[in-house]
Amino acid sequence: MKLTILGCHSATPRINTNPTSQVLEIKNHIFLIDCGEGTQVELRRNKVKFSRIKHIFISHLHGDHFFGLVGLISTFRLLTRETDLHIYGPKGLKEVITLQLKLGNSWTNFKLIFHELTSKESELIFEDEKISVYTIPLQHRVYTNGFLFQEKPGERKLDINAVLNANINKAYYRKLKQGFDVTNENGGLIKNEDVTKEPNTPKSYAFCSDTAYTETIVPIIKKATVLYHESTFLEKHAHLSSPTKHSSAIDAATIAKKAEVGTLILGHYSTRYDTIEEFKTEAQTVFDNVELAESGKMFNF
Amino acid sequence: MKLTILGCHSATPRINTNPTSQVLEIKNHIFLIDCGEGTQVELRRNKVKFSRIKHIFISHLHGDHFFGLVGLISTFRLLTRETDLHIYGPKGLKEVITLQLKLGNSWTNFKLIFHELTSKESELIFEDEKISVYTIPLQHRVYTNGFLFQEKPGERKLDINAVLNANINKAYYRKLKQGFDVTNENGGLIKNEDVTKEPNTPKSYAFCSDTAYTETIVPIIKKATVLYHESTFLEKHAHLSSPTKHSSAIDAATIAKKAEVGTLILGHYSTRYDTIEEFKTEAQTVFDNVELAESGKMFNF
Repeated sequence: MKLTILGCHSATPRINTNPTSQVLEIKNHIFLIDCGEGTQVELRRNKVKFSRIKHIFISHLHGDHFFGLVGLISTFRLLTRETDLHIYGPKGLKEVITLQLKLGNSWTNFKLIFHELTSKESELIFEDEKISVYTIPLQHRVYTNGFLFQEKPGERKLDINAVLNANINKAYYRKLKQGFDVTNENGGLIKNEDVTKEPNTPKSYAFCSDTAYTETIVPIIKKATVLYHESTFLEKHAHLSSPTKHSSAIDAATIAKKAEVGTLILGHYSTRYDTIEEFKTEAQTVFDNVELAESGKMFNF
Repeated sequence: MKLTILGCHSATPRINTNPTSQVLEIKNHIFLIDCGEGTQVELRRNKVKFSRIKHIFISHLHGDHFFGLVGLISTFRLLTRETDLHIYGPKGLKEVITLQLKLGNSWTNFKLIFHELTSKESELIFEDEKISVYTIPLQHRVYTNGFLFQEKPGERKLDINAVLNANINKAYYRKLKQGFDVTNENGGLIKNEDVTKEPNTPKSYAFCSDTAYTETIVPIIKKATVLYHESTFLEKHAHLSSPTKHSSAIDAATIAKKAEVGTLILGHYSTRYDTIEEFKTEAQTVFDNVELAESGKMFNF
């Protein structure tokens, strides 16, 4: 599971800061999460292959999270893309994107498939055999979802020496991986647990931006491998969190602690701060394992 | 008259190229012309004061000319702007901008005044005592206008030595500047031409992007001080001009020659070219005074 931060500042793009966008590589997918203005340039800078992006998740319809989407779609079009593109985001997104394509008489040759979200409950929005994606309803000034990317439990792993010693026909390996007991070449019963090992623990990534402090998300993101939680403010400006429906570093760390996640990544820093180190310091007063999002930074989990 | 190029490449923003946007400083105005994605960052990079931009001109509704507009407006809002903002562009622009502000529940505190354009004839769209702005109907795949920024003739200049020698009361200086003859302190008639000089020649800037080669614009831009004319293609790709309704460097130079402009600035280069020097070389086979637009380049005229 690899996460690349394309942008992690709030409000407006600036010379050295980009608004929210991330690329999550998980189980052979490349998921784009949020798409602020300038995202397509950051994708190029980070050498993300455009054609591998097939699913884009938009948390909410504030500009710093989606103003780069129509430009990215237009660029896909100019590059003569043919692959379907699935877009998950709040109701209204389809109208605003299609209106712009219509005004420019710039219809795409590829299918644009909008999955518009309206539910206030967490829901499954994408699934294949290896991964599920759920919404995480957040509390912000407009309808907003985070996203939980959850690997499914993998198959058991063969203990290859044990398997060979047990004289099992290769045709049964698949059954073993699926957890079944099998019969060996001599007609003896081989118990699954004697020749296989536990699968890798499924990993998960919870993206939560933008949101006020809300414990309603804790059950949804419980024990996530990695939590990205917005931290717009330091403690000295924490009084701004409630009116703007944002969070502080301490808020983010408190959620991380209650949800017992593995790692907390902070981001969505207010552009009022010249440096971000203090976000980590403050969060670590509550939760140990804190990382700072930065444009161009990659995390491997 | 000062022109700053924020971006001058076609199609898509890339790491080292920006889509079309320019800042024209003329007679105490700062006019923003086109606004591709990333324009607000280029405005910051070139230290253009946001609050001084009161008029934005959008040529057409292809993304590389207006996808940065909604983000710029949103940033003005976040910076608590209060000054009116006038936006001139094709019909549809108001709908697409207001839809995005509505979806984000992000209405501006300042007045957004849209001047939607539909005419296929050149028309006066802005005027004050020192300047007029006219549309230049262009031929592109969607409804497109260029813009002609035309200084009005200034007042005559006092020949201060002659004025003093003629013993004219200061109260008459205004009349002199306006071209009238006056009476001096001794009751004698003073002919205007004896104590004043010609005003500065009014300057003009014609912005023409995007367009196929079309001589219909020649009368409108005749003898412009400076013409910016798109040149998407070099001669080796000139066969692409007609189907895409763009121009080559030679096309642009031919228009410059026919219109007898002072200086031709080329831009809107296709991103297929790694260098742009050849655009100048080709254009100069037809017209001498050619400049190349480049991001961050300033021209003083």
